[in-house]
Amino acid sequence: MENLRNGYLFPEISKRAFDHTQKHPDARLIRLGIGDTTEPIPDIITSAMAEYAKALSTIEGYNGYGDEQGNMALRVAIAETLYRNMGIKGNEVFVSDGAQCDISRLQMLLGSDVTVAVQDPSFPAYIDSSVIFGRAGKFEEETGKYGNIVYMKCSPENKFFPNLSITRKTDVIFFCSPNNPTGNAATKLQLQRLVEFAKANGSIIIYDSSYAAFISDESPRSIYEIPGAKEVAIEVSSFSKFAGFTGVRLGWTVVPEELKYTNGFPVIKDYDRIVCTCFNGAPSISQAGGLACLSPQGYEATTAVIAYYKENAKIIADTFRSLALKVYGGENAPYIWVHFPGQKSWDVFNEILAKTHIVTIPGSGFGPAGEEYMRFSAFGRRENILEASRRLKSLYK
Amino acid sequence: MENLRNGYLFPEISKRAFDHTQKHPDARLIRLGIGDTTEPIPDIITSAMAEYAKALSTIEGYNGYGDEQGNMALRVAIAETLYRNMGIKGNEVFVSDGAQCDISRLQMLLGSDVTVAVQDPSFPAYIDSSVIFGRAGKFEEETGKYGNIVYMKCSPENKFFPNLSITRKTDVIFFCSPNNPTGNAATKLQLQRLVEFAKANGSIIIYDSSYAAFISDESPRSIYEIPGAKEVAIEVSSFSKFAGFTGVRLGWTVVPEELKYTNGFPVIKDYDRIVCTCFNGAPSISQAGGLACLSPQGYEATTAVIAYYKENAKIIADTFRSLALKVYGGENAPYIWVHFPGQKSWDVFNEILAKTHIVTIPGSGFGPAGEEYMRFSAFGRRENILEASRRLKSLYK
Repeated sequence: MENLRNGYLFPEISKRAFDHTQKHPDARLIRLGIGDTTEPIPDIITSAMAEYAKALSTIEGYNGYGDEQGNMALRVAIAETLYRNMGIKGNEVFVSDGAQCDISRLQMLLGSDVTVAVQDPSFPAYIDSSVIFGRAGKFEEETGKYGNIVYMKCSPENKFFPNLSITRKTDVIFFCSPNNPTGNAATKLQLQRLVEFAKANGSIIIYDSSYAAFISDESPRSIYEIPGAKEVAIEVSSFSKFAGFTGVRLGWTVVPEELKYTNGFPVIKDYDRIVCTCFNGAPSISQAGGLACLSPQGYEATTAVIAYYKENAKIIADTFRSLALKVYGGENAPYIWVHFPGQKSWDVFNEILAKTHIVTIPGSGFGPAGEEYMRFSAFGRRENILEASRRLKSLYK
Repeated sequence: MENLRNGYLFPEISKRAFDHTQKHPDARLIRLGIGDTTEPIPDIITSAMAEYAKALSTIEGYNGYGDEQGNMALRVAIAETLYRNMGIKGNEVFVSDGAQCDISRLQMLLGSDVTVAVQDPSFPAYIDSSVIFGRAGKFEEETGKYGNIVYMKCSPENKFFPNLSITRKTDVIFFCSPNNPTGNAATKLQLQRLVEFAKANGSIIIYDSSYAAFISDESPRSIYEIPGAKEVAIEVSSFSKFAGFTGVRLGWTVVPEELKYTNGFPVIKDYDRIVCTCFNGAPSISQAGGLACLSPQGYEATTAVIAYYKENAKIIADTFRSLALKVYGGENAPYIWVHFPGQKSWDVFNEILAKTHIVTIPGSGFGPAGEEYMRFSAFGRRENILEASRRLKSLYK
């Protein structure tokens, strides 16, 4: 624990935002920082949750413990709706209270001396949970890296896909696509190379597809679109951004039966045991909501909300393009990744907050390769996004 | 992982019950095994959850991520309602998705080489999570114990309180009161001795008070009723049995500011970091339900449900007393612990299931000191409890 660098990024940003509001109580703060959904959940989904909750007061509707792995109807619905034609079965889907929680449960699954690779930049929980589990080694001030973590640099120069020919072999590869924070979705060809690389090295890929619902183009929405991926990849995903469930808490992890340790033992058996021992099932009311999300009408309604956020993303991206800055992401993800050449990203964060009352996230919070970049979240009410656009244009024009 | 003994107890029992129903499709199975609530949740509580859920479809009522540590109103309500006069503050209460999940998060908090003591018998998750985190040592067939775990025997001979004068010093002591499975609540004097013992040894007590709401007598409902406990104890608890939230998922952990590592660093700071990195907050709808449970009317309504289960417990206890068996528990807990002298508890389990179609739990599943004992759960519909009583009486008369 002592080895963890400073505050966890998101609480740190909340704290700075809070301090700012204390200093400027009259300013109208706009939050483009933490990727937190703002749009109401479609009625068809909340009605299903409300009905489920109310029924808990009746003898017929009351349910106690559910299966630790989740309600089978929901597991099957996830497999059939989101992994159609990929051959994923309901029993391979483990319903959870969210992707971040599953990442730490997956850390429990791994032996204590595994080696880990992450995209640089990436969502901090991969590294921070690795630090807590004692796999990261010492933090090196000079490089901004942990000694035992392999950082796979992803930047415009390599089309945000790591140069695997120089990437050290590790037991585990965390890979997030569409990526948080860069907003970049890996192509089919890139993911094929990733799967081949993992296969050649005997690595397990932990693939985070939490933002898959935002993909507009032909990029794969799941690692299991790649033939052979079931033998090397676990996929973590979530209803948080897909259905506005950030507070409702619902996610899932797919562990295919084909995935085996080098000794031939199926990983799914160990993961099942972790889930039964260290978790007691996702909240039943949230699971009722998850099922409603996957009904034809529910799915259509969530798609409309996602389209709203994607329009926000376009507004933010266009804002920075109009300022002649290099803009990435936003088309397959709710995040816009903007290059501020020659500037420290925490300085940019401070300047934007001080001068425009907009909370953002400094790219360096996601890893050393994020320096000089800023992440802007497209989650927000439209009027706030438009107002933020105006403020940013007047700051930088 | 390979070091884990056979199936996790509760899934194993579910499996045997399932197999039994396959063989006897017409038998009416009665479940007195896993402690799973059966009574509807009072309307005042489910209405609060349903309203919260419905409001998520409105701009005013929508909320995204909550604080990782829980909604402060709920944290304060827990502190003020359940820890009244014990000086626990809202910021020391970490709301979670259940006690079992918190136990594994507490395992993350501990260093990799800590030593652990548990009551014998005890809830299997303490040992099983210790095995997963690599602290348990080898399982020894002869003793039925893991080599590195200290088993504190609790039996009628020592009034279910361990003989501390012969207990080896450990870094951590898991202690559950009212105890699962024995149903015994520790007295104030016993807990004072436990706190003194921990203080003298520099141990941290992880105190599980999940069944506190069932206490009928003067036994402490919290370890913090003992002066000085804040310097040595973390308390884990749950709404599962208190309010029928087994499926709704809501619990909490108290980490007092006074609790420090030997180097003086406050444990609460590390736990906060674990919660922010490996957890993302309890489900918001469940938290709304938790708040309703702690309102005066909600609390009164949950008390009535608990009284119902306690009446069940009395029926079960009286059944076995009428059969001249030694009966423990049931008065301060929903569990009845019955001695079957000279018999293997899995044999008793199999016999009761085969001959009466009642699912129970063999005491040996909770540790070697549980051999010859059976645990009966008082959670059930009254008509089932009465029918179970009739069947058991005719089996053993």
